[in-house]
Amino acid sequence: MAILLFTDFGSGDIYVGQVKAVLQRSAPGVAVIDLLHDAPAFNVRASAHLLAALADRFAHDNVFLAVVDPGVGGERAAVAVQADRCWYVGPDNGLLSVVAARARKCDCRHIVWRPSQLSASFHGRDLFAPVAAALAAHGGLPEGWSERSGGLSVEFGGDDLAEVIYVDHFGNAHTGLRASGIARDAALLVGARRLPYARVFSEVAEGGAFWYENSQGLVEIAVNCGSAAQLLGLKIGDGVAWA
Amino acid sequence: MAILLFTDFGSGDIYVGQVKAVLQRSAPGVAVIDLLHDAPAFNVRASAHLLAALADRFAHDNVFLAVVDPGVGGERAAVAVQADRCWYVGPDNGLLSVVAARARKCDCRHIVWRPSQLSASFHGRDLFAPVAAALAAHGGLPEGWSERSGGLSVEFGGDDLAEVIYVDHFGNAHTGLRASGIARDAALLVGARRLPYARVFSEVAEGGAFWYENSQGLVEIAVNCGSAAQLLGLKIGDGVAWA
Amino acid sequence: MAILLFTDFGSGDIYVGQVKAVLQRSAPGVAVIDLLHDAPAFNVRASAHLLAALADRFAHDNVFLAVVDPGVGGERAAVAVQADRCWYVGPDNGLLSVVAARARKCDCRHIVWRPSQLSASFHGRDLFAPVAAALAAHGGLPEGWSERSGGLSVEFGGDDLAEVIYVDHFGNAHTGLRASGIARDAALLVGARRLPYARVFSEVAEGGAFWYENSQGLVEIAVNCGSAAQLLGLKIGDGVAWA
Repeated sequence: MAILLFTDFGSGDIYVGQVKAVLQRSAPGVAVIDLLHDAPAFNVRASAHLLAALADRFAHDNVFLAVVDPGVGGERAAVAVQADRCWYVGPDNGLLSVVAARARKCDCRHIVWRPSQLSASFHGRDLFAPVAAALAAHGGLPEGWSERSGGLSVEFGGDDLAEVIYVDHFGNAHTGLRASGIARDAALLVGARRLPYARVFSEVAEGGAFWYENSQGLVEIAVNCGSAAQLLGLKIGDGVAWA
Repeated sequence: MAILLFTDFGSGDIYVGQVKAVLQRSAPGVAVIDLLHDAPAFNVRASAHLLAALADRFAHDNVFLAVVDPGVGGERAAVAVQADRCWYVGPDNGLLSVVAARARKCDCRHIVWRPSQLSASFHGRDLFAPVAAALAAHGGLPEGWSERSGGLSVEFGGDDLAEVIYVDHFGNAHTGLRASGIARDAALLVGARRLPYARVFSEVAEGGAFWYENSQGLVEIAVNCGSAAQLLGLKIGDGVAWA
Repeated sequence: MAILLFTDFGSGDIYVGQVKAVLQRSAPGVAVIDLLHDAPAFNVRASAHLLAALADRFAHDNVFLAVVDPGVGGERAAVAVQADRCWYVGPDNGLLSVVAARARKCDCRHIVWRPSQLSASFHGRDLFAPVAAALAAHGGLPEGWSERSGGLSVEFGGDDLAEVIYVDHFGNAHTGLRASGIARDAALLVGARRLPYARVFSEVAEGGAFWYENSQGLVEIAVNCGSAAQLLGLKIGDGVAWA
């Protein structure tokens, strides 16, 4: 059991530590792990697909605290989703909907509990963290904290997303395509370019662009000893196709 | 009980891990939380105000290890300040003085203990971390490690600071003004501009600049879907006023 | 006992959290500390010297998980090195060879165990993390996981490296020279410049360049209140000399 964090709070900024201080106080002794704090802030759909890919391997009795929440302070609801063996806590803006759509079994609850002090801009600390801590410490939501919900308000669905969803610090561009569904002799179409498949970087000449199945199971665009994002001018949201 | 870190060591650099390795060895099992490692390195006054704002919410039986220390290796003293229910450990250069001035009850002690190996440039690891670990593990300073002190050498006082004290990764500019003291119909004067108040980002048109009460209780300058720092040319130390 | 991480995975990227989730599952309760995640990615020799300097102070009953691995997915072996009182786990590409050469007592083992799911590009998560977790949890390698090895395939040796091996976020340039072997009246030759020694920053005029013994015991090139890397145009791999 651990609490895994997936946010756009910035890995070096003042926000993550405040969330952890709340978790430590409310669920002392529970491991807290930073999955990512630089999720695409203004692209909830890309973030939802990235979360689904990252969570997949750790979907065993963990609690995911997921916050990419450009609408904080507005009307969107707070939800806790039990998908297969994990809980996911976050805003009802689509962020949890890819995980939910891909689960074999899924239960959605609206969070109706509110803390005595709720800031307008930091529900990650004030609302979602106490809920995640309660789930981790007690294995479920306290009486009266939630109401059964018919489903999520925003649904992106469980299908793949043929777009760049993340660019890592090496300049590799991760897509929302699961590689298991794509033939190895397919070329990936990125702008005007056709990229061939390779199993590993070392199979490709230096400076060569290619696609491969990355360690999250996604189609990733890479350049051996170089930055694919820079060389190909890629950014989050760019469309890709294959042929 | 936790040890909360507030430094200018850089969140991705080689320094924080060494501090944590010392803490883990000397106070095993105590939670260590990164509040901030990119505090304003050459502006101790701004750092002192930021620390006071961040610490306020977690001021219950914790130990704060606070190091922004451009004078390391010189003559400044090392201090441990007990302010209300928390300990604060750091250099006697003003960094702890805003917290101290705002506390209802405050005790200041000079650290006279020195480790067998004291580097000239990394007292965070060699001196302050062992002191923080001792406080966390034993609830107080070991016999002979400290002497009663009349007070701090550098005092910034507990009043607000009408300056930008931090710029976050979204480009929002945090000031040293506590929002509780400022009327909501006041305009914030930033350079030649008058910024109106808004409760949340979504109340403001895209690209519009405004001020609001941020989640640390401070007046913050923001732009909806944009970077206030970039749009308004703001940096740490810039003065603000209201009218 | 702790697991200390030294990698080029990027401190804000998606990789470190996945490694930690594996460690938490396989060695729950063991402290995990980030020493550095921005090690020189394409300079294994510089990384090896930096690791040796950082590990030196914490070389008591810890497990170091060290991954700078441009050849991942290729033919290089995986090794676990027991050097004095610590274990070091990583690729057999020279990264562990400076630590090994400087140890009084050193044992090298090839890892022959393979996980059921081994990605082509992320052995840090799939192979090295489970090995490090096993070492931390059981104090040794499980039966059948390793074979005795005659030594490492790539050996950089234990001598100093007269090059810049790291540039920190202040712009200070760390070299692979241990300061204990260099006279304090020696000048450091960097390009066409001769830099004098100083004990601490405050001994030097603002903007002045100098060398000093840093907190890892290495010769470091610094500028008081400035960035040595910027002022002197230094980058990892640049050679230095002294006279």
